[in-house]
Amino acid sequence: MERQGDGYRELLARRQKVLAPTYRLFYEEPLYVRKAEGVWLHGADGRRYLDAYNNVPVVGHCHPHVVESIARQAAVLNTHTRYLTDAPVELGERLLATMPPEIGCVTFTCSGSEANDLAMRVCKAVTGGQGVIVTEFAYHGTTETLAGMSPVTGQPTAHGVYKARIDPAGNDAAGFALQVEAAIDRMRSAGIRPAALLVDTIFGSDGVVAGPAGFLQPAVAAIRAAGGLFVADEVQPGFGRTGEAMWGFQRHGLVPDLVSMGKPMGNGHPVAALCARREVMEAFARSTRYFNTFGGNTVACAAALAVLDVLEREQVLANALAMGERLKGGIDRLAGRHACVSSVRGAGLFVGMQLEPPGMAARVVNALKGEGILVGTAGGANETIKIRPPLVIGPEEVDALVGGMGRALDAVALPRG
Amino acid sequence: MERQGDGYRELLARRQKVLAPTYRLFYEEPLYVRKAEGVWLHGADGRRYLDAYNNVPVVGHCHPHVVESIARQAAVLNTHTRYLTDAPVELGERLLATMPPEIGCVTFTCSGSEANDLAMRVCKAVTGGQGVIVTEFAYHGTTETLAGMSPVTGQPTAHGVYKARIDPAGNDAAGFALQVEAAIDRMRSAGIRPAALLVDTIFGSDGVVAGPAGFLQPAVAAIRAAGGLFVADEVQPGFGRTGEAMWGFQRHGLVPDLVSMGKPMGNGHPVAALCARREVMEAFARSTRYFNTFGGNTVACAAALAVLDVLEREQVLANALAMGERLKGGIDRLAGRHACVSSVRGAGLFVGMQLEPPGMAARVVNALKGEGILVGTAGGANETIKIRPPLVIGPEEVDALVGGMGRALDAVALPRG
Repeated sequence: MERQGDGYRELLARRQKVLAPTYRLFYEEPLYVRKAEGVWLHGADGRRYLDAYNNVPVVGHCHPHVVESIARQAAVLNTHTRYLTDAPVELGERLLATMPPEIGCVTFTCSGSEANDLAMRVCKAVTGGQGVIVTEFAYHGTTETLAGMSPVTGQPTAHGVYKARIDPAGNDAAGFALQVEAAIDRMRSAGIRPAALLVDTIFGSDGVVAGPAGFLQPAVAAIRAAGGLFVADEVQPGFGRTGEAMWGFQRHGLVPDLVSMGKPMGNGHPVAALCARREVMEAFARSTRYFNTFGGNTVACAAALAVLDVLEREQVLANALAMGERLKGGIDRLAGRHACVSSVRGAGLFVGMQLEPPGMAARVVNALKGEGILVGTAGGANETIKIRPPLVIGPEEVDALVGGMGRALDAVALPRG
Repeated sequence: MERQGDGYRELLARRQKVLAPTYRLFYEEPLYVRKAEGVWLHGADGRRYLDAYNNVPVVGHCHPHVVESIARQAAVLNTHTRYLTDAPVELGERLLATMPPEIGCVTFTCSGSEANDLAMRVCKAVTGGQGVIVTEFAYHGTTETLAGMSPVTGQPTAHGVYKARIDPAGNDAAGFALQVEAAIDRMRSAGIRPAALLVDTIFGSDGVVAGPAGFLQPAVAAIRAAGGLFVADEVQPGFGRTGEAMWGFQRHGLVPDLVSMGKPMGNGHPVAALCARREVMEAFARSTRYFNTFGGNTVACAAALAVLDVLEREQVLANALAMGERLKGGIDRLAGRHACVSSVRGAGLFVGMQLEPPGMAARVVNALKGEGILVGTAGGANETIKIRPPLVIGPEEVDALVGGMGRALDAVALPRG
């Protein structure tokens, strides 16, 4: 434990005393962090850790342009959207410019949870329905409404929420559409009208189901035929994570009714948004106003504008695509050598490596920490290793990640054959 | 319109184009703001406006210590609570030190809405009930759950939500307890078990009902006798707004089961929290974990720690108490001169001035903008002017506020006589 640096045990004890018992730390031996830069988290143990887990610092930890933009704006004005200010207008224009023209307006929130929760309010009000379809191991947020739509947490689904199974290996467009249609049938049998199909367009918590591109189309057609709306939850795949496009839904050639986004939007600053077809929000606005105290405040907008600047200036999507291919190639080679790797999936810098038997993924994650590399798990049984480095990762760091992964697999799993 | 500065009309048109139609701007002629400092918002029209409305910048707009703390931390580390870091532990300790010892743990969120929404999840899980009592014109937040508990917005109350009327003028402890008991009876008749009494402890949206101190006790006893929990929503009165205490519930000599807070916590940085009795959160933790991506991140904690620093170093509560008395005295004198002022209520720097006939308060608010002073309205019919300047306001600024209010009343209302 001393390796973690001075005060580690004491801090851990103080934390257990004041934070609620609902908190959990990562790792068998939690990681004590004091600073971060680019793709590196610096432990209090004096070691640096390659961050291949956190999808929030999309342009790298503590990116100077984002930090300076936050500091500059915080010193001048930090106020809300009930006064006229420049920042939310500029951010709205630049966000919508990344979307299909049908997506015509934006509402700012503080978190992806608030954006998804608002999306559910909108869908229910506009359709008059209460029925929502999510995937079998979906995660959409922390509010009461969304906890009931996030079965991966182990919480029971709420009344009106129906699950559609997505096969991680199959990527079966017709099969997923059949699942959605079956959910609509069950909903209607219970006297509930369909309001929405809500999916993370890379199905991160279902175990990372990226493709083939386009496979979501029949399912979206099914919910629309039933009078419901399609909500693309871009909290995970958004802002270029997939390399191929700014938004996950674009890979599928779809135009959603609503698009939620969050985590990477401010590179760590709490800012999120719900973009939508204007006619949908106009229908909602007939009965409802919406004000979010911190949502779209001038500093949050400055943070998000700075992230958009960096994505453009540093050609981050092109890097995500190239580095994603390099990473996937390396992981595929490891899969060829290790029988425990049953599947490798992903798009851009969001790669899922499914391992067996159960428990193997967690062992590899802990072993990788020993290699100075941070990753996580996903999927219904935490069977998939989830790899999501900052999109500014370079080739040497990708190679180091693949090398460390190989050593971790060697350490905990038998080689293939 | 030209007075608002270059680009005003153009910006307004751009805003209407990209922001959702659920947005509303304050004032008949919206205010275009470009910078702020202390108690002043600087309009693009070259005028400065005394901010007597915004309860978020509690230590003054752009307070240098808060700005520097955010900038310093953002440059070093901005990560979440699944790694061990110092900031959330230190913030948890300092927050809990301001509370009664029974309140033993904290959960961080991004907004007061997220804190109140989590409080509702906790109350329902721990009591096994679904029934929640709120006041007649309550406002508790923007999530689907809380929209159904915020009747002041005009939204219908959700299933399981019952209203108790609070008489702004009466401050009648026994009367409010009877209202709560009647709500419990209606709930039980519908087969719903009580989960919580959720109140803003200064009843801001009900028209500012501050006292007399202690009047909440019988109502809290009633919900507890029925097996429900008491949630103090401190998003409005918290962080010294009342001058007499750090938290509104302390004025009433109560120890809540859960305490939510938000708006002023980071002086504009999105940070909020739910504090609770440890045994309550332990019961919740048996079925549920809770992780909030941005909640308690290192920068949000730095902002909140800086606010606590300033509250202590600058003896802000003592100032709020003294300036609140000066303000209330001035408003009372105006009430003596103007027949339209039917009641003056409040505690510390949260003052409500009830006007009649209907519509008068809105006219005074718009007239006050012409005087360079910003206030808002509250209450079921927006009949009450809500005055909430930053807690660092000085005597000259209070006198300017009262003077401007007098001129606005002269302009739109007949003198008493």
